[in-house]
Amino acid sequence: MSDITYSFESLRDALRAFAAERDWDQFHSAKNLAVALSVEAGELLQNFQWVSDEQSKALPRDIVARVRDEMADVLLYLVRLADKLNVDLSEAAHRKMEVNALRYPVDKARGRSTKYTDL
Amino acid sequence: MSDITYSFESLRDALRAFAAERDWDQFHSAKNLAVALSVEAGELLQNFQWVSDEQSKALPRDIVARVRDEMADVLLYLVRLADKLNVDLSEAAHRKMEVNALRYPVDKARGRSTKYTDL
Amino acid sequence: MSDITYSFESLRDALRAFAAERDWDQFHSAKNLAVALSVEAGELLQNFQWVSDEQSKALPRDIVARVRDEMADVLLYLVRLADKLNVDLSEAAHRKMEVNALRYPVDKARGRSTKYTDL
Amino acid sequence: MSDITYSFESLRDALRAFAAERDWDQFHSAKNLAVALSVEAGELLQNFQWVSDEQSKALPRDIVARVRDEMADVLLYLVRLADKLNVDLSEAAHRKMEVNALRYPVDKARGRSTKYTDL
Repeated sequence: MSDITYSFESLRDALRAFAAERDWDQFHSAKNLAVALSVEAGELLQNFQWVSDEQSKALPRDIVARVRDEMADVLLYLVRLADKLNVDLSEAAHRKMEVNALRYPVDKARGRSTKYTDL
Repeated sequence: MSDITYSFESLRDALRAFAAERDWDQFHSAKNLAVALSVEAGELLQNFQWVSDEQSKALPRDIVARVRDEMADVLLYLVRLADKLNVDLSEAAHRKMEVNALRYPVDKARGRSTKYTDL
Repeated sequence: MSDITYSFESLRDALRAFAAERDWDQFHSAKNLAVALSVEAGELLQNFQWVSDEQSKALPRDIVARVRDEMADVLLYLVRLADKLNVDLSEAAHRKMEVNALRYPVDKARGRSTKYTDL
Repeated sequence: MSDITYSFESLRDALRAFAAERDWDQFHSAKNLAVALSVEAGELLQNFQWVSDEQSKALPRDIVARVRDEMADVLLYLVRLADKLNVDLSEAAHRKMEVNALRYPVDKARGRSTKYTDL
């Protein structure tokens, strides 16, 4: 188990140092980071490719471990992209949850997966 | 600016409550969440589709705002998926950064975008 | 119904003319086309986001129409990318089917979704 | 070089036979095929992850070969999905090209990568 609990800020700082030491900022344009994020999301999804919804509720331990590593990759690129664009991820999440609360009022959205534009 | 600073745990709890109120757990299989995460990563990427690397270093403010909202969506699904799979995102990130440090030693990786398997 | 049946070649030629008339070759680097292809694949997938496997076997007509349009987008970018990289799609498909036949021999792969590396 | 030139129909038939021999129709729900298509599009994109637009205009031969194989995978899943949804890919492409011609008139779209909604 890790004895470190990352905040978005400490994760950002750790990734910043990692890239700086390796002179990787030259590769980390926002576009390239968005590409990398999407590629990792695809690798994550690959683990569910032939898995049924039902099976995905109780995944074998080794698959969960693989998914966990891909989730970490997605998170690392997300935090790195946020840094490059000066986005505050905590604030962005808060804002989006407020939007979602308006788009999906409990009484209308309850038990339905319909998109808000069709609710 | 938001007056709330989310940790992964508080974000997880907020999303758990949001889904519970709407009876959405029935849709939130790990597979469906992985699909949703990948879809949002694609929407994020769409903002960079015809943008050059150079242009992506100084994106117009309205594009950054759109990207920020897509980043929030990616984060929300990531946290939700982590909850469903009992993954500790902070620990997963820490573990992956340790792996990356081994895969990309500074002296070998400096200034190169080569994948570790080819370093 | 269309009275035109496209071959890969005629589709390539039509897209080539479309881009030339609009002076779009400047945007159609292989990288940008690969990004566009991935974005469209995400839009296609979005239509299945909250759909169960079972439901996906009998999709409503309007969803099929939307999926069809996204499939067309994927195909158009695929053909355009093939043109830029001098890839013969018909040959590439043939070659890949031969590889798949070797990787997934009938007796071993029958009724199993296991990846060839684990067969 | 291949001595076979596939049409969409002959490719569909070949894939149908391949799946039938392996009893794979049980895995090939439209949803699963859409997931697989998106995963392959991500693998294709991975080859361009740290490549600049400029570099992507003259890719090394071995990268083109890898991209070609991923393009084949995208095509195979696209054709398979079309079969499952009774979509005529040639017709869908034709229809989409007509839509694109209306959305992007030559005089307005010339030399611009702006989305039609903003033209």
